[in-house]
Amino acid sequence: MTDATEPTSRTPLLDQVRDPSDLRHFADHDLRQLADELRQETIDAVSVTGGHLGAGLGVVELTVALHYVFDTPRDKVIWDVGHQCYPHKILTGRRDRIRTLRQGGGLSGFTKRSESEFDPFGAAHSSTSISAGLGFAVARDLAGEKHNVVSVIGDGAMSAGMAYEAMNNAGAMDERLIVILNDNDMSIAPPVGAMSAYLARLTSGDAYVSMREAVKGLVSHLPRFVERGAARAEEFARGLAMGGTLFEEMGFYYVGPIDGHNLQHLLPVLRNVRDAKRGPILVHAITQKGKGYAPAEGSSDKYHGVSKFDVVTGKQAKAVSNAPSYTKVFGQSLINEARKDDRIVAITAAMPSGTGIDLFEEVFPSRTFDVGIAEQHGVTFAAGLAAAGMKPFAAIYSTFLQRAYDQIVHDVAIQELPVRFAIDRAGYVGADGSTHAGSFDVAYLSCLPGFTVMAAADEAELRHMVATAAAHDSGPIAFRYPRGEGVGVEMPEAGVPLAIGKGRVLREGTTVAILSLGTRLSSALKAAEELEAQGVSTTVADARFAKPIDTDLIGRLAREHQILITVEEGSVGGFSSQVLHYLAGAGLLENGLRVRPLVMPDVFVDQDKPEQMYAAAGLDAQGIVRTVFEALGRDQVTVASARRA
Amino acid sequence: MTDATEPTSRTPLLDQVRDPSDLRHFADHDLRQLADELRQETIDAVSVTGGHLGAGLGVVELTVALHYVFDTPRDKVIWDVGHQCYPHKILTGRRDRIRTLRQGGGLSGFTKRSESEFDPFGAAHSSTSISAGLGFAVARDLAGEKHNVVSVIGDGAMSAGMAYEAMNNAGAMDERLIVILNDNDMSIAPPVGAMSAYLARLTSGDAYVSMREAVKGLVSHLPRFVERGAARAEEFARGLAMGGTLFEEMGFYYVGPIDGHNLQHLLPVLRNVRDAKRGPILVHAITQKGKGYAPAEGSSDKYHGVSKFDVVTGKQAKAVSNAPSYTKVFGQSLINEARKDDRIVAITAAMPSGTGIDLFEEVFPSRTFDVGIAEQHGVTFAAGLAAAGMKPFAAIYSTFLQRAYDQIVHDVAIQELPVRFAIDRAGYVGADGSTHAGSFDVAYLSCLPGFTVMAAADEAELRHMVATAAAHDSGPIAFRYPRGEGVGVEMPEAGVPLAIGKGRVLREGTTVAILSLGTRLSSALKAAEELEAQGVSTTVADARFAKPIDTDLIGRLAREHQILITVEEGSVGGFSSQVLHYLAGAGLLENGLRVRPLVMPDVFVDQDKPEQMYAAAGLDAQGIVRTVFEALGRDQVTVASARRA
Repeated sequence: MTDATEPTSRTPLLDQVRDPSDLRHFADHDLRQLADELRQETIDAVSVTGGHLGAGLGVVELTVALHYVFDTPRDKVIWDVGHQCYPHKILTGRRDRIRTLRQGGGLSGFTKRSESEFDPFGAAHSSTSISAGLGFAVARDLAGEKHNVVSVIGDGAMSAGMAYEAMNNAGAMDERLIVILNDNDMSIAPPVGAMSAYLARLTSGDAYVSMREAVKGLVSHLPRFVERGAARAEEFARGLAMGGTLFEEMGFYYVGPIDGHNLQHLLPVLRNVRDAKRGPILVHAITQKGKGYAPAEGSSDKYHGVSKFDVVTGKQAKAVSNAPSYTKVFGQSLINEARKDDRIVAITAAMPSGTGIDLFEEVFPSRTFDVGIAEQHGVTFAAGLAAAGMKPFAAIYSTFLQRAYDQIVHDVAIQELPVRFAIDRAGYVGADGSTHAGSFDVAYLSCLPGFTVMAAADEAELRHMVATAAAHDSGPIAFRYPRGEGVGVEMPEAGVPLAIGKGRVLREGTTVAILSLGTRLSSALKAAEELEAQGVSTTVADARFAKPIDTDLIGRLAREHQILITVEEGSVGGFSSQVLHYLAGAGLLENGLRVRPLVMPDVFVDQDKPEQMYAAAGLDAQGIVRTVFEALGRDQVTVASARRA
Repeated sequence: MTDATEPTSRTPLLDQVRDPSDLRHFADHDLRQLADELRQETIDAVSVTGGHLGAGLGVVELTVALHYVFDTPRDKVIWDVGHQCYPHKILTGRRDRIRTLRQGGGLSGFTKRSESEFDPFGAAHSSTSISAGLGFAVARDLAGEKHNVVSVIGDGAMSAGMAYEAMNNAGAMDERLIVILNDNDMSIAPPVGAMSAYLARLTSGDAYVSMREAVKGLVSHLPRFVERGAARAEEFARGLAMGGTLFEEMGFYYVGPIDGHNLQHLLPVLRNVRDAKRGPILVHAITQKGKGYAPAEGSSDKYHGVSKFDVVTGKQAKAVSNAPSYTKVFGQSLINEARKDDRIVAITAAMPSGTGIDLFEEVFPSRTFDVGIAEQHGVTFAAGLAAAGMKPFAAIYSTFLQRAYDQIVHDVAIQELPVRFAIDRAGYVGADGSTHAGSFDVAYLSCLPGFTVMAAADEAELRHMVATAAAHDSGPIAFRYPRGEGVGVEMPEAGVPLAIGKGRVLREGTTVAILSLGTRLSSALKAAEELEAQGVSTTVADARFAKPIDTDLIGRLAREHQILITVEEGSVGGFSSQVLHYLAGAGLLENGLRVRPLVMPDVFVDQDKPEQMYAAAGLDAQGIVRTVFEALGRDQVTVASARRA
């Protein structure tokens, strides 16, 4: 009873599980307690690290049941999105590191091949698991192997075209593949579209209730069916279907809906589909996001993503914010513009709160369109709106906009349609790691003829860029800005359209010119101070535009300085390439100018604090100073900033 | 009876149609003849120009009926893909230019906004029309307008996720939108997947036959229904449904299947859905690709795309080929590799013959996967195969690979999976114009960490690159090559893996270095001869790799020459950016080197002969020479090549 006493473990069963093979020594009736312990451990871990909580809590029983029934890692279980994988990580040898989730050097917040053989396919973007699973299933058959492949996918993910493409193929190929549709009636926001309504019909009313009874009754008969072999097992699987015609028309055996929290229902169904040796089979499991943790269940977003929190109260630790987030500034600025122009409409792809479109929707519900996880459709839908004279703002994260690249090229750019792209999460994004980094948008957009590409240096600039985009009606225009808070500059009441293709000079010097695109500007200014202190006179300019670039400004910087540094929060191929091409073509590289383009290094960077990531990339003030001194040929160890390192 | 006699027009009705308003003066019973004339005119035009024939012939009656029943251009008719639009162009004021189809300066082979107000939304890639139509419909409602929006989409296009995404949204939004599903049971190849099988079930057997009878019987009653207003019209539309549960579950009113060549069926149904003022409605029309032209009907590809041909015999003019096509060399080389390694599998997205995968399939049917028009799924499916130890080759045109960009980043590159990308149609593609140009792949792939990107300089190089890709198992690798014939080099019997990231020098000089990526090499060599003739000693190198670049070679070229020209068949942001970044970072731009990156100019280029396109882009031998002399500061008019221009 004293502090020194070794406390009784709160997770006695879970403590015995180092990997799923340990799990399989338990009896069926032990699993309820194990699941409860796993849920508790998940809550406790996330209370320390922050991260995705609701999704994991919704699949605790499913996770236990899958690893119990299937022979992982020989059988492949492929989680879609992967943010629900914390219980899975705890069960698959990563419990000892679970409190490093999403931290620098720690576990990824998603499934990851390099982390564990129990993660056969990594994920972080939505709706990939059926395609990947089909690849595994086909490879298995070609190799003459016999293991099972299970793809888990959420109902929200079913709004994405690639899930449909995968089902269209799997259904026609008659491939032995098990798809678990984890239907919690939520993605991050409530799901969108006709498919969602269809799933709701499948699970509503008497059908679901009587189904649960049916499963219960059938459990005792199971061995008999299995003994009689595959044909009868198939019949059984078919018999379970209460609906699901749409899936059946797509070539799947449909089983369900079943209660995804009830192990007595889950275990026999999973054993059955495992042994059916037919496919493809879709098991429709109904779960509750945030299940078993009252604060999550009671929250509107079901604790989708949380900060560190108090386990008892559920209260999240909120960091003190010094400035509004870019996301919020975007949302409010768009509202301002939309009050003046009723042709402005907003589009989000299942991320209303992540993009600030939720704010817009409160004011302009009929001018807001959440298309679901459907960026391809979202962008061409926006193109249609623009072709009909509207001013659509498509607010999509940099990383997710990759999903709509062909639509951007083919439907927007070639037709010169004035679709406005509000690109949130530009640059490194911190805890979400490489899968969510906004690294490539400037490269993949700036190569497109007629595109205007901007990056905001601070939140006031963002407000002006929203106004610029609203006013720019002659072709596509994009503006990007990072995750997180602004830098705390004074906000203008109203946005004022910027001159297209014109940058601005923030400080004048004579030796070095730093030309920044985006929010590296603050590091550029800091570097300039450091350089001045070292006696190196430094100009700092904000390019504002990655395309078209300000050739007057850049020409002047090149002619009047010995060194020109470009800095951006993006990959090679973007802003710096525009600048280098211009300088080369204009013959401005032939007079001894030392040009040093600083871009994200050519690696996928794991999760960490953004400032650490930029430092490691050499894109912070110190990195800029270091580059300047290297270009000057001076020894960098004499530099004050280096001494502080 | 003599040649001087003015012949009686073979198209007396069509001659009266300058635009669809003229069409609407005809009586219903005149339309059969008009359609026949339109079909004849279409065949005749394409016999002169070459182009897409089968698809257009399949929609002649549909085209007539749509423009007759709907008030175009006030009502918006949006054709998917757009290659079936030749009859539409003939009816909408473009008959006088129809024999310029796909020629330089002529009509586009696709719908195009800049060409006509009757083309409200251009298309050339598949499956965009429902998304665009939904945009038009929403804009109409927000503006309080009342016109109709009709999206036409083929059954092949229904395998693409974005069509599903659009239906998922349209179905849930209850938007007044008419979708015509033009079901000809063909895309370019036979369609793929469960949806295709579902459509086949809908149209098979008695249902379709009795449906035709039903429509015939209902025609006389139509006015009565219309008089009783929208409610009854809706009832009528519902009553027409013989099936289509899947579409109904997706929130659509389903009408059909109906005979898309029978105007007596088409007209009442279209009038009815026009007047129903409800939506969304899907009209399932059954058509026959190549309809009404015996040589097309009898051809396996239904004359999807043809050369100029003899109208009577259907015999196509085949250009004499001097060398095998790159496509064929790829297919044969892959077969060679696959004979040695049974882990090699091939994936195409509905383009088996376009990519040469049809050759592979003949030899290895069980190792060939046509995923349909589903590039997103195709790439992640390939990633799954690679994760399971296979060696997948995804053969996808450069322009269509844009559809799978996020899958390339997220599922392939981040996971370092050795998916092989065979990128056909790199660079300008000629008659298909800007929508099909392969301009951006080197830019959008070379920015990705860990990616290896190659471009073949000739067909022998392509063979080696296939071998290189087969051997490269440590990460993603892509190789690109153009449409059309090789340059006629001797072919090696077997491909030999190239050293990764190493180029080759083809001729040594002292003043100018031309560093080529891809098939511009022949122009580079020609330019070098010209330059030597002018007394300018010239080195020519083939980079082979856009990433990783050969820094040894490039460093040497930079140090040992006054001028360095890079040449590539791609946009800014690609190979040249890799080179410029390296040179800048290595301090090789500071010694007076004149570097001139030659890339595709920053415009979308309309259809023309590829050699014209490259000349206009300054990427031919003359353009290279011109650039060199400009860099040298010499007057280019003294150049022999310029005199020949």
